[in-house]
Amino acid sequence: SNKLRKFIISPYDPCYRYWELFLIVLVIYSAWICPFELAFLRDLPSKLLLAENIVNGFFAVDIVLTFFVAYVDSKTHLLVDDQKRIAVRYLSTWFIFDVCSTAPFQPISLLFTRKGNGLAFKILNMLRLWRLHRVSSLFARLEKDIRFNYFWTRCSKLISVTLFAVHCAGCFNYMIADRYPDPEKTWIGAVMPTFRSESLWARYVTALYWSITTLTTTGYGDLHAENPREMLFDICYMLFNLGLTAYLIGNMTNLVVHGTSRTRSFRDSIQSASEFASRNQLPDKIKQQMLSHFCLQFKTEGLSQQAMLNCLPKGIRSGIAYNLFFTIIRKAYLFHGVSNSFIAELVMEVQAEYFPPMEDIMLQNEAAADIYIIVSGVANLITTANGNEQVYEKVEEGDMFGEVGALCDIPQPFTCRTTTLSQLLRIRKIRLTEIMQEHKEDSKILMNNLFQKL
Amino acid sequence: SNKLRKFIISPYDPCYRYWELFLIVLVIYSAWICPFELAFLRDLPSKLLLAENIVNGFFAVDIVLTFFVAYVDSKTHLLVDDQKRIAVRYLSTWFIFDVCSTAPFQPISLLFTRKGNGLAFKILNMLRLWRLHRVSSLFARLEKDIRFNYFWTRCSKLISVTLFAVHCAGCFNYMIADRYPDPEKTWIGAVMPTFRSESLWARYVTALYWSITTLTTTGYGDLHAENPREMLFDICYMLFNLGLTAYLIGNMTNLVVHGTSRTRSFRDSIQSASEFASRNQLPDKIKQQMLSHFCLQFKTEGLSQQAMLNCLPKGIRSGIAYNLFFTIIRKAYLFHGVSNSFIAELVMEVQAEYFPPMEDIMLQNEAAADIYIIVSGVANLITTANGNEQVYEKVEEGDMFGEVGALCDIPQPFTCRTTTLSQLLRIRKIRLTEIMQEHKEDSKILMNNLFQKL
Amino acid sequence: SNKLRKFIISPYDPCYRYWELFLIVLVIYSAWICPFELAFLRDLPSKLLLAENIVNGFFAVDIVLTFFVAYVDSKTHLLVDDQKRIAVRYLSTWFIFDVCSTAPFQPISLLFTRKGNGLAFKILNMLRLWRLHRVSSLFARLEKDIRFNYFWTRCSKLISVTLFAVHCAGCFNYMIADRYPDPEKTWIGAVMPTFRSESLWARYVTALYWSITTLTTTGYGDLHAENPREMLFDICYMLFNLGLTAYLIGNMTNLVVHGTSRTRSFRDSIQSASEFASRNQLPDKIKQQMLSHFCLQFKTEGLSQQAMLNCLPKGIRSGIAYNLFFTIIRKAYLFHGVSNSFIAELVMEVQAEYFPPMEDIMLQNEAAADIYIIVSGVANLITTANGNEQVYEKVEEGDMFGEVGALCDIPQPFTCRTTTLSQLLRIRKIRLTEIMQEHKEDSKILMNNLFQKL
Amino acid sequence: SNKLRKFIISPYDPCYRYWELFLIVLVIYSAWICPFELAFLRDLPSKLLLAENIVNGFFAVDIVLTFFVAYVDSKTHLLVDDQKRIAVRYLSTWFIFDVCSTAPFQPISLLFTRKGNGLAFKILNMLRLWRLHRVSSLFARLEKDIRFNYFWTRCSKLISVTLFAVHCAGCFNYMIADRYPDPEKTWIGAVMPTFRSESLWARYVTALYWSITTLTTTGYGDLHAENPREMLFDICYMLFNLGLTAYLIGNMTNLVVHGTSRTRSFRDSIQSASEFASRNQLPDKIKQQMLSHFCLQFKTEGLSQQAMLNCLPKGIRSGIAYNLFFTIIRKAYLFHGVSNSFIAELVMEVQAEYFPPMEDIMLQNEAAADIYIIVSGVANLITTANGNEQVYEKVEEGDMFGEVGALCDIPQPFTCRTTTLSQLLRIRKIRLTEIMQEHKEDSKILMNNLFQKL
Repeated sequence: SNKLRKFIISPYDPCYRYWELFLIVLVIYSAWICPFELAFLRDLPSKLLLAENIVNGFFAVDIVLTFFVAYVDSKTHLLVDDQKRIAVRYLSTWFIFDVCSTAPFQPISLLFTRKGNGLAFKILNMLRLWRLHRVSSLFARLEKDIRFNYFWTRCSKLISVTLFAVHCAGCFNYMIADRYPDPEKTWIGAVMPTFRSESLWARYVTALYWSITTLTTTGYGDLHAENPREMLFDICYMLFNLGLTAYLIGNMTNLVVHGTSRTRSFRDSIQSASEFASRNQLPDKIKQQMLSHFCLQFKTEGLSQQAMLNCLPKGIRSGIAYNLFFTIIRKAYLFHGVSNSFIAELVMEVQAEYFPPMEDIMLQNEAAADIYIIVSGVANLITTANGNEQVYEKVEEGDMFGEVGALCDIPQPFTCRTTTLSQLLRIRKIRLTEIMQEHKEDSKILMNNLFQKL
Repeated sequence: SNKLRKFIISPYDPCYRYWELFLIVLVIYSAWICPFELAFLRDLPSKLLLAENIVNGFFAVDIVLTFFVAYVDSKTHLLVDDQKRIAVRYLSTWFIFDVCSTAPFQPISLLFTRKGNGLAFKILNMLRLWRLHRVSSLFARLEKDIRFNYFWTRCSKLISVTLFAVHCAGCFNYMIADRYPDPEKTWIGAVMPTFRSESLWARYVTALYWSITTLTTTGYGDLHAENPREMLFDICYMLFNLGLTAYLIGNMTNLVVHGTSRTRSFRDSIQSASEFASRNQLPDKIKQQMLSHFCLQFKTEGLSQQAMLNCLPKGIRSGIAYNLFFTIIRKAYLFHGVSNSFIAELVMEVQAEYFPPMEDIMLQNEAAADIYIIVSGVANLITTANGNEQVYEKVEEGDMFGEVGALCDIPQPFTCRTTTLSQLLRIRKIRLTEIMQEHKEDSKILMNNLFQKL
Repeated sequence: SNKLRKFIISPYDPCYRYWELFLIVLVIYSAWICPFELAFLRDLPSKLLLAENIVNGFFAVDIVLTFFVAYVDSKTHLLVDDQKRIAVRYLSTWFIFDVCSTAPFQPISLLFTRKGNGLAFKILNMLRLWRLHRVSSLFARLEKDIRFNYFWTRCSKLISVTLFAVHCAGCFNYMIADRYPDPEKTWIGAVMPTFRSESLWARYVTALYWSITTLTTTGYGDLHAENPREMLFDICYMLFNLGLTAYLIGNMTNLVVHGTSRTRSFRDSIQSASEFASRNQLPDKIKQQMLSHFCLQFKTEGLSQQAMLNCLPKGIRSGIAYNLFFTIIRKAYLFHGVSNSFIAELVMEVQAEYFPPMEDIMLQNEAAADIYIIVSGVANLITTANGNEQVYEKVEEGDMFGEVGALCDIPQPFTCRTTTLSQLLRIRKIRLTEIMQEHKEDSKILMNNLFQKL
Repeated sequence: SNKLRKFIISPYDPCYRYWELFLIVLVIYSAWICPFELAFLRDLPSKLLLAENIVNGFFAVDIVLTFFVAYVDSKTHLLVDDQKRIAVRYLSTWFIFDVCSTAPFQPISLLFTRKGNGLAFKILNMLRLWRLHRVSSLFARLEKDIRFNYFWTRCSKLISVTLFAVHCAGCFNYMIADRYPDPEKTWIGAVMPTFRSESLWARYVTALYWSITTLTTTGYGDLHAENPREMLFDICYMLFNLGLTAYLIGNMTNLVVHGTSRTRSFRDSIQSASEFASRNQLPDKIKQQMLSHFCLQFKTEGLSQQAMLNCLPKGIRSGIAYNLFFTIIRKAYLFHGVSNSFIAELVMEVQAEYFPPMEDIMLQNEAAADIYIIVSGVANLITTANGNEQVYEKVEEGDMFGEVGALCDIPQPFTCRTTTLSQLLRIRKIRLTEIMQEHKEDSKILMNNLFQKL
């Protein structure tokens, strides 16, 4: 049902994805070269001109291609592959921007002025930066993709933004100095009076150095604005930096808070348990059980697993339960011979729990409320007579316990204590009784199984 | 019932809103010109003097107007349009401040001193800044108005505060230098010995440049305090900046945390679901169902919709339910001929759910707990015999399923799987049964409808 | 029961509180003068020496006094007024620190050295700073006192810490310069070669200026470390600043997040409601009802009122309910003549709700689930016949509605719509029925009241 | 069961822990000496060379030792002591890194070059820094260890990272200057032209001073990059600092938010309670009860105690309940002679609550819903006749109240008010009734106990 009309490309097509990734590389090149050209290259070398035209060619191809790429309708969440609707949507949204950012201004400018490097056309070239919206949407997609670490995705985004800001500001500031009538009254000229004859590399590094010194608010002061024009640019740049720095810190705080939340909530649990134990003078054994429970929980599962399961609709939840528990319950001696529909109902009521070693799962003489099936691990059934504990039986994978107390309505005859890390299924007595009342036949088989064991 | 007494204006009147907005523009002008005048204009040009008097005039009009504007009582939340109470409230609160900030000090000062630019009167002029409280209350209102983006409203507020701080500090610092006896021992004179003869523009830009260099803590050091007076001002300004910067960062962090919370919680759900699936070795189909459920939820609705509905009082909730579900339930074959009051009760128990394509809504042989009505989308009823799945029926908009299992008390005879994105209404079997017991007549009609279909 | 033994002072005694407050003022003086003395005053003026001895005297009195002040035991939360236990506790905790920070080092030093200003004794003087722990515990108390705004308490604390850090660093840095053998190779000497002969005021301001320039990381560079000794101090100070700045920003973020949480959650509710309404194409009237409900909630109550009430133990909750609702229910016609114990039980089940004007409280024909009593405001009972709405009755303060539907088990015969802002008590039908079954006699009276009205 | 095979060491062995701690000290030494050597020591003194070889020796021993240390399997959470699996795991993970970071490059280099201080070998020496991963995992462990304060652990980590960054950057920057052909065109040479002949101490302090001035963004500008090579390094370092500063602030914010959350939520409760009381004009007595309840809760327990208990599995919860309440309930007169299994069931339903002095636990004439047993403290039973309160009885430790109302199904005959801080056990009437129905015999004994008292 996912087939598209002829000549229409799916936006999820791997080839199209590679094409998009390839364009991203070209976008990064454009974003770097545009401000650089503007500031440092009075006469564009022919090699760069060629490269630029090739890059523009690729983007022109992409404009044509976009007319053949299906899109996801934002209301129905369905793929639209009707070419007319695709065209209408594209023409009414980004088409004009894409064309403007791809038009070859350099050749056009040659038609009008003799020298093809007029400032006006160079500034028109800055329209190329519109292409950056592709990088932005790439990052938006990566952030939602759990194959990539959120922390590093977010950091890459922030680093990219910072580097681009540094590069742009460096280039613009150099351009202002370069075009100022009195070269000695410029930020770079005050330090290197003959800066125009310095190597491109030295000038670019100096510009970047000034830019980053200002952005990080280090402000050594060896390079600083010397005339009102530079001061004005510097004012704008510093205001922008204030926002950018705050944004960086805000993002980092967000990431740190998120990253440490699990450890912190683990510490809170442990702390709370310790305090509770010492305030109530609980015996050391129970305190250890509490602490090892939280340690195990921290290691075995995420914090919000149960919350996540509760968000799912019932259909999916029952699918999960069926997959996880059906075979195990089917094999338990108590349910030999009962109908599949009985187990299918039971399966929905089952909960899986982990227990660390040496933990008491149930206590002798307590009211029977649950039945347990061991999925993995080993536990001992212990009876206490005259204060002496005696191991009555060892239960292992596939065994049950608690069923005698629950079905015969007597207090638990044993204490059950794990010996290794164990995973158990818990069935609440009350729900089992309800299901048994609905299935009279199965109920008889089940009680028969129980009595045969006794 | 919303009519006010004669001559009383509602504060929600659009004309009054425009008047307020117009005053805000004048406030911004005042806030800019006041410190500027103080620092840079020894002799006020007559044009500016005229402009100032006109502005004062408008504010004087507003003072009079305020006596005729109703207000909302903070206890009863009702509009008060009694002129006496309006007057008492205004006179006992802001009246005196408003008058002081509107009084024409310039003309008054001319009565006392020959030259109308005495420093004392200029400082009195700073009382004009009281008017800024209007901008502050405008922002407080905009923040609560969801037509405006919270992020940008908050940012505009912070940017306004920053720009105003920069402007003020620049002006005051210039004033200190301007009035210092030894011009060469001032922050600006050390760099431009003849700064008083420089153009106004150059001096203003230099002052702003110093101000922002200090505020952002860049501190190039090309301009710095040279005498104790300037040092003292600088100390105060830097302390203020420390607070302002922390406030900016705090706000930005707040906005970033808020802005990314939805994406983050989506990622957490997806992550948690993936981990759960791989830890329990769930089949890939179920894993895909879980993931596509969360993706759909992320796209179709906000995180807190259900929480929001729960906050509403019952009257509104039932109004919503009636609107959304009455017609759909009315049309379902099962409810042909039943009374309106039956459906009116039923409607309150209904829940709407979205399902992505290929998701199992219910499974064959599971206990029947819910009845579904399809609002939009298509689903297949599938029977499994000998492990082979066979499509038994295709259900579409307006069809029901699950009713046979629920009303005849048998396990579901079919698995139901969506084929497209579907919206469904879910009615819990237990609630339907309760309503049926209260309406014996309707119950018979309903069961009749069911048997006729079978 | 709150009386203490003879000669023992309660720590909550207002006089003792004033004494503590007076000591805080002395502590602030000490904290300022100690580093200042160390750096700037080679020979202590006799006036200052006297002042210091007087201050020490007061603290000596406080040491004696502490032996007579009861304390709260941290385990039992009871006041201990046994003088022996008070003494033991004080001697084993802060006594030795208090004595050391009060000892008169100046006079003692005169015994040993001829000149009473040896550096060693001056440094011993820094022990006075131990007294600052009083300020710290004052702030800890203020933070928990809701009479003081949290934001400003926290800000004052941070400002105090910052100012103290600036003052100390300025003084220490000056001391290093002052005692360096080559005055021209010091941070201050490089700029003012004859700094020792400058006025005390100029030197102190310069020191503070350097200190704050460094703390805010502005770092103009006009004053900077010139020799390894100063560099080392500067390294330590900058490391400390890094921590302090981060702490300031962290606190501000905390305050901003807390301060904006209410507005943000209001916006979220409104946004969520608007989106829900437009996605489901709800009629505009219902949308307005939803929005005005959230606006009202934002204005009338804090966010967490219900959560707060749930935290209280049952005893207090029933006390509150009794106070708020007993008289109102007593007066309602339905409960004329029923026993007090009936109403006492009913009162616990009542909930108060606010409704904005024009909101539907209940709808005609919906299942009767609640009974309402109007506490304040006015509402209309409306019947709909042939699609025309007709006002049947106007209900006001003290009237009830919904009781006919609830007690006769029929659907609501009316729609009820508020005309002004109204406060209502809601009684759930199901709870009322339960209470009526327990009180047969009262139940008869109640039904009688109902039939008489009908 | 925790015994390991012969020759295998447990990672929890205290001796092994001390060995690890000793290695951490060596790691810190390595981390400091490596960059220092690279920058400042052209010819390595023989003492340092010896020290380095000894340190390497210890790490070589550790590599051998690791083959004998058991590890915890990440899937089963069990200790693996099979030497083959240990070896396979180590060889396939960190072995190669450990060997590279331990190899004695200095001696090896002597084989190849005459002078053993070639830059290449010095850079190879930087591989030693791999050892820092041990410090990182130490901090990861400390963060989860509640014996150490989270705030200070986290701060130590951040300070360590900062100091290491400062040290490294200082050394590298010096190295760049040291190896630059024109010493006067370097950051240090511009200020100290003969820096190579200065003392090691002065050079190291200057390097650190530059490094920290840049890291904290103070940037005095007295020392700054002078050539492109230094500028490039400076650019990288400032970019790194931007990230590090944001990370520091993010962490501090996280810690501050966490640290103040308890006080803030206490203030919110108090504020909400005060507002509620004043809005509803509750009598002052009830307001005081509400406030003192929250104060007590703030002092006696953590915020999340109940939430923590709910996270524990049922087995542990019943163990805790048994320990805390069994003896107290056993002693209560009502349960004299009833069976242990009755009390064992009852114990699970009991809840402990704290009440401040003068709080009403239950009110006369309210429906009896709970039975209370006093664990500690004193309370008065009060009857109200004609509006006069009279103390009927004083109940103390071990006494019960509320049982008459609950078991005879009458309204409470008394108001119960605490006189001191009291801890009480609450048993819900409804649960007690259920347990009594299951134990007919015990139920008779219990009612007998009650009637004998009456």
